[in-house]
Amino acid sequence: MSDTNSTPGSHASFDLTVRNARIVTATDDFHGDIGIRDGRIVTVAQDLPAGTRDIDAGGKLVFPGGIDSHCHIEQLSSMGVMCADDWHSASVSAAFGGNTTIVPFAAQHKGDSLREVATNYAASAAAKSVIDYSYHLIISDPTEQTIERDLPELIREGITSFKVFMTYDKLKLNDTQLLDVFAVAAREGALPMIHAENNDVILWIARHLIAKGYTAPKYHATSHAPAAENEATNRAIQLASVLDVPILIVHVSTLGGAQAIHSAKALGASVHGETCPHYLLLTAEDLDLPGTEGAKFCCSPPPRDEASQEALWKALKNGVLQLFSSDHAPYRYDESGKIPAGDATTFKQVANGLPGLEVRMPLLFSEGVLKGRISLNEFVALTSTNHAKMYGMHPRKGCIAPGADADLVIWDAECTRTVTHAGLHDAVGYTPYEGRSVTGWPQTVISRGRVVVDGDTLQVAAGSGEFIARGLPAPLREQRKHSPETHFLRSLFSLDKTEQ
Amino acid sequence: MSDTNSTPGSHASFDLTVRNARIVTATDDFHGDIGIRDGRIVTVAQDLPAGTRDIDAGGKLVFPGGIDSHCHIEQLSSMGVMCADDWHSASVSAAFGGNTTIVPFAAQHKGDSLREVATNYAASAAAKSVIDYSYHLIISDPTEQTIERDLPELIREGITSFKVFMTYDKLKLNDTQLLDVFAVAAREGALPMIHAENNDVILWIARHLIAKGYTAPKYHATSHAPAAENEATNRAIQLASVLDVPILIVHVSTLGGAQAIHSAKALGASVHGETCPHYLLLTAEDLDLPGTEGAKFCCSPPPRDEASQEALWKALKNGVLQLFSSDHAPYRYDESGKIPAGDATTFKQVANGLPGLEVRMPLLFSEGVLKGRISLNEFVALTSTNHAKMYGMHPRKGCIAPGADADLVIWDAECTRTVTHAGLHDAVGYTPYEGRSVTGWPQTVISRGRVVVDGDTLQVAAGSGEFIARGLPAPLREQRKHSPETHFLRSLFSLDKTEQ
Amino acid sequence: MSDTNSTPGSHASFDLTVRNARIVTATDDFHGDIGIRDGRIVTVAQDLPAGTRDIDAGGKLVFPGGIDSHCHIEQLSSMGVMCADDWHSASVSAAFGGNTTIVPFAAQHKGDSLREVATNYAASAAAKSVIDYSYHLIISDPTEQTIERDLPELIREGITSFKVFMTYDKLKLNDTQLLDVFAVAAREGALPMIHAENNDVILWIARHLIAKGYTAPKYHATSHAPAAENEATNRAIQLASVLDVPILIVHVSTLGGAQAIHSAKALGASVHGETCPHYLLLTAEDLDLPGTEGAKFCCSPPPRDEASQEALWKALKNGVLQLFSSDHAPYRYDESGKIPAGDATTFKQVANGLPGLEVRMPLLFSEGVLKGRISLNEFVALTSTNHAKMYGMHPRKGCIAPGADADLVIWDAECTRTVTHAGLHDAVGYTPYEGRSVTGWPQTVISRGRVVVDGDTLQVAAGSGEFIARGLPAPLREQRKHSPETHFLRSLFSLDKTEQ
Amino acid sequence: MSDTNSTPGSHASFDLTVRNARIVTATDDFHGDIGIRDGRIVTVAQDLPAGTRDIDAGGKLVFPGGIDSHCHIEQLSSMGVMCADDWHSASVSAAFGGNTTIVPFAAQHKGDSLREVATNYAASAAAKSVIDYSYHLIISDPTEQTIERDLPELIREGITSFKVFMTYDKLKLNDTQLLDVFAVAAREGALPMIHAENNDVILWIARHLIAKGYTAPKYHATSHAPAAENEATNRAIQLASVLDVPILIVHVSTLGGAQAIHSAKALGASVHGETCPHYLLLTAEDLDLPGTEGAKFCCSPPPRDEASQEALWKALKNGVLQLFSSDHAPYRYDESGKIPAGDATTFKQVANGLPGLEVRMPLLFSEGVLKGRISLNEFVALTSTNHAKMYGMHPRKGCIAPGADADLVIWDAECTRTVTHAGLHDAVGYTPYEGRSVTGWPQTVISRGRVVVDGDTLQVAAGSGEFIARGLPAPLREQRKHSPETHFLRSLFSLDKTEQ
Repeated sequence: MSDTNSTPGSHASFDLTVRNARIVTATDDFHGDIGIRDGRIVTVAQDLPAGTRDIDAGGKLVFPGGIDSHCHIEQLSSMGVMCADDWHSASVSAAFGGNTTIVPFAAQHKGDSLREVATNYAASAAAKSVIDYSYHLIISDPTEQTIERDLPELIREGITSFKVFMTYDKLKLNDTQLLDVFAVAAREGALPMIHAENNDVILWIARHLIAKGYTAPKYHATSHAPAAENEATNRAIQLASVLDVPILIVHVSTLGGAQAIHSAKALGASVHGETCPHYLLLTAEDLDLPGTEGAKFCCSPPPRDEASQEALWKALKNGVLQLFSSDHAPYRYDESGKIPAGDATTFKQVANGLPGLEVRMPLLFSEGVLKGRISLNEFVALTSTNHAKMYGMHPRKGCIAPGADADLVIWDAECTRTVTHAGLHDAVGYTPYEGRSVTGWPQTVISRGRVVVDGDTLQVAAGSGEFIARGLPAPLREQRKHSPETHFLRSLFSLDKTEQ
Repeated sequence: MSDTNSTPGSHASFDLTVRNARIVTATDDFHGDIGIRDGRIVTVAQDLPAGTRDIDAGGKLVFPGGIDSHCHIEQLSSMGVMCADDWHSASVSAAFGGNTTIVPFAAQHKGDSLREVATNYAASAAAKSVIDYSYHLIISDPTEQTIERDLPELIREGITSFKVFMTYDKLKLNDTQLLDVFAVAAREGALPMIHAENNDVILWIARHLIAKGYTAPKYHATSHAPAAENEATNRAIQLASVLDVPILIVHVSTLGGAQAIHSAKALGASVHGETCPHYLLLTAEDLDLPGTEGAKFCCSPPPRDEASQEALWKALKNGVLQLFSSDHAPYRYDESGKIPAGDATTFKQVANGLPGLEVRMPLLFSEGVLKGRISLNEFVALTSTNHAKMYGMHPRKGCIAPGADADLVIWDAECTRTVTHAGLHDAVGYTPYEGRSVTGWPQTVISRGRVVVDGDTLQVAAGSGEFIARGLPAPLREQRKHSPETHFLRSLFSLDKTEQ
Repeated sequence: MSDTNSTPGSHASFDLTVRNARIVTATDDFHGDIGIRDGRIVTVAQDLPAGTRDIDAGGKLVFPGGIDSHCHIEQLSSMGVMCADDWHSASVSAAFGGNTTIVPFAAQHKGDSLREVATNYAASAAAKSVIDYSYHLIISDPTEQTIERDLPELIREGITSFKVFMTYDKLKLNDTQLLDVFAVAAREGALPMIHAENNDVILWIARHLIAKGYTAPKYHATSHAPAAENEATNRAIQLASVLDVPILIVHVSTLGGAQAIHSAKALGASVHGETCPHYLLLTAEDLDLPGTEGAKFCCSPPPRDEASQEALWKALKNGVLQLFSSDHAPYRYDESGKIPAGDATTFKQVANGLPGLEVRMPLLFSEGVLKGRISLNEFVALTSTNHAKMYGMHPRKGCIAPGADADLVIWDAECTRTVTHAGLHDAVGYTPYEGRSVTGWPQTVISRGRVVVDGDTLQVAAGSGEFIARGLPAPLREQRKHSPETHFLRSLFSLDKTEQ
Repeated sequence: MSDTNSTPGSHASFDLTVRNARIVTATDDFHGDIGIRDGRIVTVAQDLPAGTRDIDAGGKLVFPGGIDSHCHIEQLSSMGVMCADDWHSASVSAAFGGNTTIVPFAAQHKGDSLREVATNYAASAAAKSVIDYSYHLIISDPTEQTIERDLPELIREGITSFKVFMTYDKLKLNDTQLLDVFAVAAREGALPMIHAENNDVILWIARHLIAKGYTAPKYHATSHAPAAENEATNRAIQLASVLDVPILIVHVSTLGGAQAIHSAKALGASVHGETCPHYLLLTAEDLDLPGTEGAKFCCSPPPRDEASQEALWKALKNGVLQLFSSDHAPYRYDESGKIPAGDATTFKQVANGLPGLEVRMPLLFSEGVLKGRISLNEFVALTSTNHAKMYGMHPRKGCIAPGADADLVIWDAECTRTVTHAGLHDAVGYTPYEGRSVTGWPQTVISRGRVVVDGDTLQVAAGSGEFIARGLPAPLREQRKHSPETHFLRSLFSLDKTEQ
């Protein structure tokens, strides 16, 4: 009698077991084993038999695999610069950083068909990604075709989030367009993500800086005044409040931005927020380097100051911000990227964005968990679980529970490394964190039961990652109570099924 | 070769299995089975074999057993009234309400030895409780013996929380005493719980009301002015801020109280909050009944108004309040309790408190989950997981994970009942929610693998519950950053191990 | 020896005396007499001899003449509707309402020369006004000629304020233009006044309302959602904060708008606010009348609700709002104004604005002073003195002191009238306050020593009012401390004379 | 023909004229002359004839005489230390500092008859003061005799304010007593002034500091933690809110204190605030001097830090704080005062308080007006007019208007002096501002038409000042709207004449 017959049920045999682990989820923390079959977790238990493949975690931490829901891959920037990372290099770098899912952007530029953009992007991802993925849409041309036909279809196909910009001439939507896409989002079940900076403020300051000869990279930070972010954050919140539409403010960098979200929440709004490693660890002073060297730290919004860092740590702790993403934006420090005009590059010519896919989780662990600013459970929530919920992938992703994809990271909490670009796997050529000592690093990364990364080796082929069709984002699952005025306005857009 | 031999480990055989469940934790939600052995969860899996005892959950919700961390059992009130519920009736009622752990109070009255109080209370609990339990201390006489010897010892024995009162003549501590006990709490690792109402305000208003002949129960609410709670809440927070001591404000009932906590959190304070069913569902108008009938709704703080209810729902949703407890305070509506002077009872003579152990979870499910105010995960956090964390019982309690106690409630989300006292199991004789229709009710309650309640029947004997020695409350596990001034003051009390 | 010789100095003889008065200023309140010569107050004393003309105030209140700094006269609206009041009817109506100075708008429409607009407007005013006047500019076309040449010149000529719109397609400036005009204002010494409503929000809601057939006047209020005002108010404040430019938000109507100003002030910003009678006394429900009758109450922003009224009263009391103006916008309830399409008029066709010049002071006295919401001194500040200061006319206007223009109103605090349009002197044909009982009304109005209104009679000729060249607005007289970042940005625009 | 006959009325002849002045009031600013007869201003005019005595102000500023409404004179402290200044030296020093009215405290100590305290204090004042005066009561023993008989009588006699302490063992009232005196104040028409610091916090920290050997003066500041002030400020506000009683918080020193007042105002409370020179100009670091030298800077609350200074300047500007007083508390730096135990003096033995009567106005002028933080009108309001209004002396005091007492200060805005104690006129022996350069100093001080100070000479005799019977404080003149609950509670105390 075969073993399979004698022990019916899930416990019978596993393709893979991870045993002797300290398993940490967004809420729990316990010692146990994980049994995996057909790419899914089937059993979480205290004392499992070895599976076909057996990994002894040696008592180390095991988290749900990281989800980086804000990264730029194989994407053309608003300035026409192509990312240095394609789906392969990016997914490899993400995997080495402890991630098992990435959600970059299929970016519509003006004139593009949203459907075609998505189709092409999906094809490239399918061919190259080594871990699972989905993508958000970027909507820059909200024509009727785009928002009334392509977008609803894509949402139904599982692309339940999209980003809109309030800045960048070639991407930005005006307020009417924001209202339009917010209404569609609420009706069709998608979450709008908002890059909230006031375009006019930034361009106006930049123009006057340049006219006076202030062109060095550090003036990038000057031109992106905190007021520009504070203003746009509040504007996005107010626009969303017209129909009480859930939204997410990405890459919050200022105290004022965090306060705007905090105040809106206190009044009951469904407003959510994200921040990124550079806003916790860098400041505008990092841009103040000789020549164009500061270009390596140019991103939008820019790193701010220590008071902002402190405010953002508190906002992560207090639940004002729920997501911690890399906003990986890989541009090389050469004429293909950061310094298109070489030494003569002015701050307005610098490609905007910093790499960070691979160091996101180690940086938060080292600076957040080990310095006592956040708990282990909060670390998991901020790097994985909240992303899964916010973007409609939970409970398939972001958790360690039967039925979930077997996406796991075995974490070596005592491993101290010095960050160098040479030790990373992206194609960017530099890291803003060069030379920084970090404790805590992924040891083994498992995606749908496949060991993707084992120590320093990649064990899977390009294209082995799968597309994740996403469901309704968590904020859209809530039944919300509306004032009579809001209820009436929502009725104009058929946003509620039944009368209140 | 026997099956047991052939498959060593936890999956071999279970004392009990709960199968075909929709398992909901504070963060996850999945279908699966739970395998239990020796009172603990050993396996959470998708397809387990039946155990020695096998329960088919029929696809119903399964939650971690409820934890009611604020209830009064077999306790003498400040007015000398004994609770109508002893450890047996209370624990039975709690179990029928979906709870598997209760944490009432061992109450020191002036002159009492804290050690003796705890010893006696523990003995009674051990003899009678049908579910697991711990208890908080109430400290009303902070002598040197009490706070420098008895309290630290009891903390080390696992009683890692205590309540202090800012009101009630016979219980209240003055500000110096609060500072003293806060310092000891921070040093020894306990969480102070605070009943925050200004005693002078309440007595002063009451005295003038009575002098003018306003003696009906509804004037109880008048005397407990919101200002009394708002003031004391802020005072407690400020006193705790001197040494940056984590505290918990119990039974928050006002917008002002919630705002004081919210503001303190925004500034980084470790201040936590709790509310109770009556503050979400009743108002001061419920006290306005003929004769002394309103006494059935007299508790402190009193139910407020609809705006307060709305504010508290938002505070639960926003994380300003983390706990939802019953504050079960069982006094009969007769001369033994609520109306000691019969028809002539004035509002100052009414025993303070409402029963609610058994209806806490059903009320929150019906009004919170089903009306879309909170999610299922939030329901679990508010009724179970957060209590376990706040009071140092996690991950033994409050979660569904290997290693945890097998404390489970199988919840019938579609069962609609009309609340009547006849249908409840406490000894109070009435319920403030009489006649209210509620949907969602526990079907089966399992404590450490024992089926405690199955439908309408109790299946365990008095004294079968166990004492839970508790560890460090979660707020005390954080490493907190202090200003130089606070750091210096903390050094006077040796609150930090090493120099910052 | 002549009397003139024997008593040299100002007390020798007066052209006019107002004696036996209870004189109330923005700060004082005393009994005395006022001696006037050559149009100016020369003496304020306790016991003056009669002048050439002698008025016995009979112990009544005497205030500085009212200043209405926000009214529309002989102006083409953005929709191309001409005001029903020209400089004569408006100034007469203002005078009967207790005002001695009015400051309406010389409105530039796109393509207009600002200089020509001002010249023409000034000519008409000079020919017709019966009381003193100045005017603000409205800048809708901020060409280089307009803001770099015409505007600075006009500021130097005493037109030290201008209004800009964030709404109305034909008038609105975009954010870049707002930044431009704010910089010029700070450099040249003028105060920007801002109509803060988000144009896109209003048009977007309106479009969808009309598409669904909701066209009645009451939907005007629906389309002007509070969010539109809250958003734009915050945006204006944030834009002004880039260079720390003092600004004024006109006609604040929402709690959110008042809070945005309050918060900015608390952080040290020089942000000022105004409200108007209709926001204190009317609500959106007043628009809900049969047919097009509600058009009589259509203005922008619209009247809100009772909670907003309460918030605005507190904001007046607390100094969050410093000005109380009429925003008199005189459109007749016929096809020339409010209902251009007769019965078929939709809410988007209704000319926006309410008349109120003549009733502003009586309404505030009756509802504010007599109901104990504001003091007499505050009444004077809100209706006169603060306007003089805010717009650079103090101490010539807005006070009762030697050297000031003899602009006085003798106020009958006990006179109760029923407001009817028949009793008013404008050309509008209706009043939104028809039938309202008001106590307190001007009895005699004196402008530069001339009795303009005596009871029910006008005593002066068209064109007898004088133009007031205005100086630096009070907010621009402050020396403000700037952060290094703001100081640097200000240096790009040469806004500070010397290094800090 | 006599002059009196030929020129009837007030302009006929003046006892004193002040001519050629730039007259600045709380709201106005104009050039003119002031005619004085019988101690009162009778005429304010542009071109007056000389009076019997004629002063040419030479174009200098003329303000209403300063009013210092918070100073300690001839008073026994809670620690039993007698002030170094008696009514003569204090009033002389005040006069040299530009003041024409002082309002110190008749202090009841436990067991004292309030009536006797007042009688004795008044007698001493009458014999010695060189300028006008009133006094507040200090109530430390609110017996029935005190608050139901003596206090109401004294209020009717014109003592319409009293101070209560929340700290100092020998003075402090408990919350019940505060509620009692607030109710009496509201009923009888007096303004409670509150020293808001939590006594327990201060004593508790001090006890632990001393136990650890931290006894130097700088630990005084450590013991008076900001939390103690923030807490008590909020408590006072909440207690007053029970009956909606207007109150004044004296000597606000913290951001948290100012915010508590700000928030209460925003909600409509009648809460007022005062600050003092040392909170704007000194910090806790000033206490950190060798030996006991820091005792010279010990006061309660103590000077804080630069952030607090900045917050208080904004609070003065924004109207959160209306009064600027010296809190002159004259203790010598010797064994009679600051260092009773000589070199062995610990911080708990240091007499609390700083001298400042004479430098209050020059410091505010130099640091506030000349540095652009406040306007001239605000200077007058903060040093004179607001005191007169707040304490029921307006319009007799605090203004320059006919009928007002001729209390004037001619101010030399260009005079720069170095502050030294040798140049001052008090009996304290030191000044905390020794060596500080100050611009702006009184040149001539006139009280009720008498020249009190002319340059460096005193021109009046002891006892020539007069007692000012005060009327209803301005905050009590407002009609306030109450919630139904507050209205009901007020009815218990007969606080409102008629039904709302």
